[in-house]
Amino acid sequence: MNAPLAATEAAPDAATRTARRAEVLALLRPLLPAHALLWQDEDTTPYECDGLSAYRQRPLLVALPETEEQVAAVLRACHGLQVPVVARGAGTGLSGGAMPHALGVTLSLAKFNRIVGIDLAGHSATVQCGVRNLAISEAAAAHGLYYAPDPSSQIACTIGGNIAENSGGVHCLKYGLTLHNVLQVRGYTADGQAITFGGEALDAPGLDLLPLVVGSEGMLAVVTEVVVRLTPRPQLARCIMASFDDVRKAGDAVAAVIAAGIIPAGLEMMDKPMTAAVEDFVHAGYDLDAEAILLCESDGTAAEVAEEIGRMLAVLQGCGATRLEVSENEAQRLRFWSGRKNAFPASGRISPDYMCMDSTIPRKRLADILLAIAEMEKKYQLRCCNVFHAGDGNLHPLILFDAADPDQMRRCELFGADILETSVAMGGTVTGEHGVGIEKLSSMCVQFSPEEREAMFAVKRAFDPAGVLNPGKVIPTLHRCAEYGRMHVRKGLLPFPALERF
Amino acid sequence: MNAPLAATEAAPDAATRTARRAEVLALLRPLLPAHALLWQDEDTTPYECDGLSAYRQRPLLVALPETEEQVAAVLRACHGLQVPVVARGAGTGLSGGAMPHALGVTLSLAKFNRIVGIDLAGHSATVQCGVRNLAISEAAAAHGLYYAPDPSSQIACTIGGNIAENSGGVHCLKYGLTLHNVLQVRGYTADGQAITFGGEALDAPGLDLLPLVVGSEGMLAVVTEVVVRLTPRPQLARCIMASFDDVRKAGDAVAAVIAAGIIPAGLEMMDKPMTAAVEDFVHAGYDLDAEAILLCESDGTAAEVAEEIGRMLAVLQGCGATRLEVSENEAQRLRFWSGRKNAFPASGRISPDYMCMDSTIPRKRLADILLAIAEMEKKYQLRCCNVFHAGDGNLHPLILFDAADPDQMRRCELFGADILETSVAMGGTVTGEHGVGIEKLSSMCVQFSPEEREAMFAVKRAFDPAGVLNPGKVIPTLHRCAEYGRMHVRKGLLPFPALERF
Repeated sequence: MNAPLAATEAAPDAATRTARRAEVLALLRPLLPAHALLWQDEDTTPYECDGLSAYRQRPLLVALPETEEQVAAVLRACHGLQVPVVARGAGTGLSGGAMPHALGVTLSLAKFNRIVGIDLAGHSATVQCGVRNLAISEAAAAHGLYYAPDPSSQIACTIGGNIAENSGGVHCLKYGLTLHNVLQVRGYTADGQAITFGGEALDAPGLDLLPLVVGSEGMLAVVTEVVVRLTPRPQLARCIMASFDDVRKAGDAVAAVIAAGIIPAGLEMMDKPMTAAVEDFVHAGYDLDAEAILLCESDGTAAEVAEEIGRMLAVLQGCGATRLEVSENEAQRLRFWSGRKNAFPASGRISPDYMCMDSTIPRKRLADILLAIAEMEKKYQLRCCNVFHAGDGNLHPLILFDAADPDQMRRCELFGADILETSVAMGGTVTGEHGVGIEKLSSMCVQFSPEEREAMFAVKRAFDPAGVLNPGKVIPTLHRCAEYGRMHVRKGLLPFPALERF
Repeated sequence: MNAPLAATEAAPDAATRTARRAEVLALLRPLLPAHALLWQDEDTTPYECDGLSAYRQRPLLVALPETEEQVAAVLRACHGLQVPVVARGAGTGLSGGAMPHALGVTLSLAKFNRIVGIDLAGHSATVQCGVRNLAISEAAAAHGLYYAPDPSSQIACTIGGNIAENSGGVHCLKYGLTLHNVLQVRGYTADGQAITFGGEALDAPGLDLLPLVVGSEGMLAVVTEVVVRLTPRPQLARCIMASFDDVRKAGDAVAAVIAAGIIPAGLEMMDKPMTAAVEDFVHAGYDLDAEAILLCESDGTAAEVAEEIGRMLAVLQGCGATRLEVSENEAQRLRFWSGRKNAFPASGRISPDYMCMDSTIPRKRLADILLAIAEMEKKYQLRCCNVFHAGDGNLHPLILFDAADPDQMRRCELFGADILETSVAMGGTVTGEHGVGIEKLSSMCVQFSPEEREAMFAVKRAFDPAGVLNPGKVIPTLHRCAEYGRMHVRKGLLPFPALERF
C-alpha cells in the first residue's frame, strides 16, 4: 500500500490565507447566491469549533448551499483547486470532527432540513441531512413510530452529523447505533459525483459500502439525504433504580443482566461522585449513600415489561443490590432519567471545566476499568465522575479540572489518554459514539497497528485520492504516531492535538 | 478513480496450465507438508465447483494449510508470482463464489476447524474459520446459548464461508445476518500480512472495516479466526400456519405484521405449487387448498410468546387468512418447519433440475413481485415454485427446468435474470444471502452504476492492488456490463456466466 496522505501542515500566515480566500471566493461566487457565502471574521467565528470547544480555528470561508446541485458544484470547484472541504451539521460533535481547516471551506448543510417523506409500510423516513435527530421522531410520532438512536444532543444534532460519527445514545443497547438504523445514504464524492450507499432492501450485494460511510466523519463523501429505519413506539416503559455499596458489584450486575439473556431498553450506571453532583442539581431521588447506581429500563407491551422487570429485579438482587426501586408511573420514570440526562451540566456546576471521555470496553471488564480510573484519580490528582452506557460498555468519564491552570490542563489530558489506552488494553476501543475527530487522533496510534491504519488510509484514498475531504482527522499519520510513541517514552508531554496544527 | 482490474481472460490451454502448475508447486512445496498439496486431476476434481454446480473448473492445485503461518506463507508466495488465490470453506455456496480459477490456487481452510473458546460473560465464541455453523451452536448449547444465523446448509457450511457471503437464514429477520452476529475477524491480506477487523467492544473508531470484509466473498482478505456473538436460547417458540386464498393478501399480511410493530422470529411464505411439492414429500400438514401459506414464529418467554402470538393472529385474521393453526407443542412446530426446510429437495423430486434465485425487494412489494413472477412463468413457459423469507423480503423462487434441453436452459437463465432485474426495479437487490459470486455478475450491471461499481473496485484495489484474491468474481467489469447491455437490447442471448471464462 502507498504512503498515507499528508495530514498535518504548518499553520498558514495571514497573507497566505487572504490570498487563498480571494482565489476560492472567485471560484465559488458564480456557483452560489451571495448570502450563501460567509468570509468576514464576524461571520465565520460561530463556525470555529464544534462541541470540542478547547480547539478553535476559523475556516477560510463558509459555504451554505441550498440545493444538491450547489453541493456538487462547490465540491467540484474545491476539488479542482485542491481546497480542503469540511462538512458541518449542527456543530454539536464532541471530538472536533467538524473543526475547520485554516485553508479550507466549511460546507454547512444547515439548509438541508426537509423531511422528504415517511413510508408507513416500510417503517422508514427519507430526510435531508440537516434534519434534526429529534425532528424525525416528532414527525413520525403521529404514526406511533420513532427514530431510535438518541444522543444527548438529539434536540439539536442533525442526522448527517449522526451518520458522520455513528452516534449512539441511551437506547442503543437494544435498538443499535446509527449504523443499525440507516437504510440508505445519498451524497457526493470529493469530486462532486453523486453516490448512493445501501438501499431499502435487505443486504447489499458486492462490497457493502453503507457501513463504511457511516462513522467515516466526512472523509469519504458529503451526505445529503438519508433513509432511516423507524421503530414502533413501545406501549410502555418502566425503569428500575438499583443501588450498590460497591462499584465492582454494580459492574458485575450489568454483566449478569446481559448474561441472563435480557437486553434492557437502557442500562446506565453512575458512580457516587456523579450522583452527588446530579442530585444537587435536579433532585431525581437518587440514593446518595450508594457507591454506584444502575438505571435499568424495560419497554414493550405490558406483559413483556412486567416479565422483564421481574427477571431484572431477581438478577440485581442476586448481585447484591442494596436498594431497588421501580418507576410506578411515567412521571417517576422521567425523574429517574432526568439525573442521567443532566450529568454533563451538573458536572459544569461543580468544576470550572470538565473533559468528557468516550471509550468502550468489553462489558465483563466494567468493574476493572472503574477501579483503574479510581487509581488514575490519585495518580493525576484530579477528580473524575463516571456516568455511562453500562450495557454497551461505553464509558463517559468526566474529568474535572480548571483549564486556567496549565498544569491541571496537562494532567487532565494525560488522564484522558490513560483512560483511552487502558480501555484498549482491556480489549476496548478509544471511542464509542463521539468519533475520533482531532481529539483521539493520538490514541488511534495505540489501538491500531501501522498496517491497520494504512488499510484505512487506502480506503480513504479509494474515495478521495486528492485528500480534500476533512483532511487531518480520524486516522493518524505514521509520523504522528512515531512522535506520540516518543512522547510516551518520555512522558509528561501533551498527547493532545494542541501539539499539531490543523 | 482508475480503471478497474481486469476480471476476464481467455481460457488457458493445457500446456500453459502444466507449466504454471510446476512453477507454483516448486514455490509452495517448501512451505507445506507433502499431504497438504493436491494437484492430480482425481484429487482436484472434488474442488471444481461449489453449490452452483452448473459451472465447473479444476484449480491449478489445492493447498490445505494447517497453521496460520502456512496460510500467510502461501499468500506471500502466490502474491509474489501473481497467482490467483481462491479461499474455500465447505463449498456449499450457491453463487459460485468458491469456483476455482484455471490458473489459481484453491486455498482450502478445512483444517481450521477448532473452537478456540466460549466467553460466557461476553456471550461470544472464538472459532477458527473452518468450524461448521451448527457446531458453534452445539458447543454453546450446554450454556443455553446459540449462534443465531441459520442458513439451510448450516450442518455443513463453515463460519468462514458465512462471512464471505454474509449468510442469512430463517431467523435473520429478528436476529440479523452474519454481519450483525460477528464481533471480530482475523485473517491475512493478499500479500500475507496479518489483519484484524472489528473487536469485542462496541463500535470501531475510524473507518469500520469489519462490515466491509463481511460479504466480500474472499476478495479483500483470507479469514482465519472469528469471534461471533452468541444469543440466549429462548425459553419457548410457537409457530402460526396461516392460509390465504390469494397471493396478494398473503404478501400484504406480511407487511401488516411488521407494520404492527411485531418482529417475528421467522416469517416465511410458500405458494401453492411449493406447498404441493413439499406436502407430497414430508407431510407437514400444509393446507393444499391455500394459494399461499405463511409460517409466523414467535420466541421468548412464555408471556412474551403468548402475547405476540395473540397479536399476530389478530393481524393475520384482519388480512383475510382463511385458516389459522398454532403449534401446540415442539413436535408440531418442527413439523410445520419440516416442509419449509425441505423445499429444495422437494423441488428436485418434481423436476429434473431447478434453479434457486435469491433476490430481495422492499417488503411492501411482496405481492407485486409474486404477480410479476406469475407473468414470467407464461412468458418463459417454465414453472416456478416460490418459497422465501417473507419478513426480510428475501425471495427464493425455484425455477423448474430440464438442463438436458438447451432451450429450457436458455429460458431458465433469462427467467432468472428477469426476476433479479425486476427486483432491482422494485427497489430491491440481486442477492439477499447467497452472494454474487459468478452467478449474478451480469445482474450487478443492472443494480449499480459504473461509478458505484468503480467505488467497489477502488476499495478492492486498496486491499489487493495486484488483484490476486478471487479475481473475476462479484464486481463486473465495465467491459462485461457493456456487453451485457448490448445483449439486453438484442435479447435472446445467455445473460449468464457461460458467456465468459473464469
